Amino acid sequence: MESLISNMERLERMRRAMVSAGLDALVLRLPENVLLLSGFWPMIGATTLVFPVDGRPHCVVPHCYEMEAAASLWDAAVSYYRFGVLDSPEPASAIGAVLAGLHGQQHWRRIGYEGDFEVVSPSWNSAEALVPAARTRRLYSEAFPGSELVDASALLKSERRTKTSYEIGKLKRAGEISCFGLEAFERAVQLGASGVELAAEVERDVMVRGTGYQGAERVRAYAQVAVGPDESAVGYRPNEISTTHRLQDGEVALLELGVVVDGYWADRTRVKVAGGPREEQVRIFETVKQAQQAAVAALRPGVRAADVDEAARSVIRNAGYEASFPHITGHGLGFGYHESSPILAPGSTDVLEENMLTSVEPGIYCKGIGGFRIEDDVFVTKQGPMILGPFQIILS
Amino acid sequence: MESLISNMERLERMRRAMVSAGLDALVLRLPENVLLLSGFWPMIGATTLVFPVDGRPHCVVPHCYEMEAAASLWDAAVSYYRFGVLDSPEPASAIGAVLAGLHGQQHWRRIGYEGDFEVVSPSWNSAEALVPAARTRRLYSEAFPGSELVDASALLKSERRTKTSYEIGKLKRAGEISCFGLEAFERAVQLGASGVELAAEVERDVMVRGTGYQGAERVRAYAQVAVGPDESAVGYRPNEISTTHRLQDGEVALLELGVVVDGYWADRTRVKVAGGPREEQVRIFETVKQAQQAAVAALRPGVRAADVDEAARSVIRNAGYEASFPHITGHGLGFGYHESSPILAPGSTDVLEENMLTSVEPGIYCKGIGGFRIEDDVFVTKQGPMILGPFQIILS
Repeated sequence: MESLISNMERLERMRRAMVSAGLDALVLRLPENVLLLSGFWPMIGATTLVFPVDGRPHCVVPHCYEMEAAASLWDAAVSYYRFGVLDSPEPASAIGAVLAGLHGQQHWRRIGYEGDFEVVSPSWNSAEALVPAARTRRLYSEAFPGSELVDASALLKSERRTKTSYEIGKLKRAGEISCFGLEAFERAVQLGASGVELAAEVERDVMVRGTGYQGAERVRAYAQVAVGPDESAVGYRPNEISTTHRLQDGEVALLELGVVVDGYWADRTRVKVAGGPREEQVRIFETVKQAQQAAVAALRPGVRAADVDEAARSVIRNAGYEASFPHITGHGLGFGYHESSPILAPGSTDVLEENMLTSVEPGIYCKGIGGFRIEDDVFVTKQGPMILGPFQIILS
Repeated sequence: MESLISNMERLERMRRAMVSAGLDALVLRLPENVLLLSGFWPMIGATTLVFPVDGRPHCVVPHCYEMEAAASLWDAAVSYYRFGVLDSPEPASAIGAVLAGLHGQQHWRRIGYEGDFEVVSPSWNSAEALVPAARTRRLYSEAFPGSELVDASALLKSERRTKTSYEIGKLKRAGEISCFGLEAFERAVQLGASGVELAAEVERDVMVRGTGYQGAERVRAYAQVAVGPDESAVGYRPNEISTTHRLQDGEVALLELGVVVDGYWADRTRVKVAGGPREEQVRIFETVKQAQQAAVAALRPGVRAADVDEAARSVIRNAGYEASFPHITGHGLGFGYHESSPILAPGSTDVLEENMLTSVEPGIYCKGIGGFRIEDDVFVTKQGPMILGPFQIILS
């Protein structure tokens, strides 16, 4: 059971941001934002959180998850509606009635909503994403007559870019659990293994070993393993595709791994060569490793994100591979697999702040040789960079 | 490589529906709808399909998936935009420019878009759902000046309720691949196994054995296994939660399984008792099995969905368990884990049509004894019901 004040820092910060933006309340439907401000990570069915600038939050939850909501909500009034059973009302009308009741007491003038999330983190049930579309917008209009509905997407994304100590605890756990997947990958990369088999092993180990780790309840991995140069060095693409191609001697296996633990995300990459690596593979790998270390070492509050990118890129440039590193060095994450801030890239205008979390993931992709990328998630602190879930970086 | 006319039936049907609705074109962003009308199941990055009532469809695709798009698109012009690399444009501007160019040639008056999808099927990368929100709506407005944008969500959902012979082929394959998960479940349900372990085994086997099966390329399972009466008979909830609780003698394991194969879905449930089942568990199981068989047998074009529900419900009522069957008997599916039509439920006004696909999944949930549900996906034909991926139904 979480304590009432577990993440008070987040709630107070959000309230200050709401005051600055002139918002009297937020109404949130995306699981990632409900989690952000309530502690409860929704599963299926529309869960709606009303977060007023003054007063207690109110969460509307499908009745079948009463137990989970009660155990994880920090401090919120809760209304339950029947869901998924024969006598269930339309969720919209059940939720609308609760919202209208709250509004009747408060008369919020300006209410922020999630109008512009186009890349959405899945709920626990990632086979179906839950998003607020036109009907939810209408529901808000009807439940909040006379109020101005304001798109608060930019404010939410901006507030999410730096993490609280509570959140870093959760993200650290996610990073440690992601290591179970990296371990499985180290173990399973053998001649003859296919990308699909490697991905399945990684996902299995993360779920089996991760669930219960430091109390983690809902753990899922999304692994992709490209095998061989044709798959791993397709120019560059942000999401590998695992196939039934089997590892041959000297071929790379490139693992891209997303892990979610109770709503908090990790994003890791490791690369290995099956059998004996060729000389150039070793040289490329060492270059990527040094580039990653240089970027990690550069992470400090006040540093420009473009300079962190340059720390990695210059290592790769000096080794003669600049044209083979076609992507950014890193991105924010935490409440999603990817978040929009910071972006470590040439020309980025972001400046690092204390308590940001960013991936650091330089890569080199060479036709006929393979794609090499190394990725960790690093927390920016005054004391220096802190890798969440440190894990060895070895090629073979 | 799919042939040009693989699914012409779908395209022709959609064009007729568009004529009836007075739509000159559709502009689609959700992976499930891009797949429906183009044959390409997008991965990450915004893929946009313009489907005109007259003329050739046009698909705008991130360049890094050129190979996959070329191999799977039926017949469409394609524009690629750079994505995920340093010199990428804003996707919105790249896509917007293509749309505006098309519109300049055609001057469509009424264009349908996806304004009201709130439960969304994930793309291949289910760690991040891609949805069109406010900015996409603005992009359409700017790219299609002078056109009326019409929410075509209801039309799309309605057209999706009956499947073409091409689609049934794909869905049959998904059903057969789901059997690899059911087999893994049969094998792994042993005293001492945890719900998390069972779920992970099922997911692993579906991915490893499913990829490559009849040419399947991208296969993923979403398994949940409730273990014991406290987890499986929480009143009823539509999505179980796998935990580290381990199967004791006489406890049920209830598997809820979603499987996606290249964008086509299966939805299965099996239940088993570890060790020796108690007499009442056998009685409940046999009741659910008979109820399921009765509902499947009732599936014919022209039959009322409420009567199919009643076929199952009366078996359960006659056995004295009606109050313990609190949910509907089935739902449409295919381009998603759940689709909105048909709904097999008391009071449903749906009438079954030839080529509908529906789940059939009665269940009985008794405190202290366990939750029992059996689910298959059944295709409605004039010749009678056709289960996609038939699989044995046994308790222990």
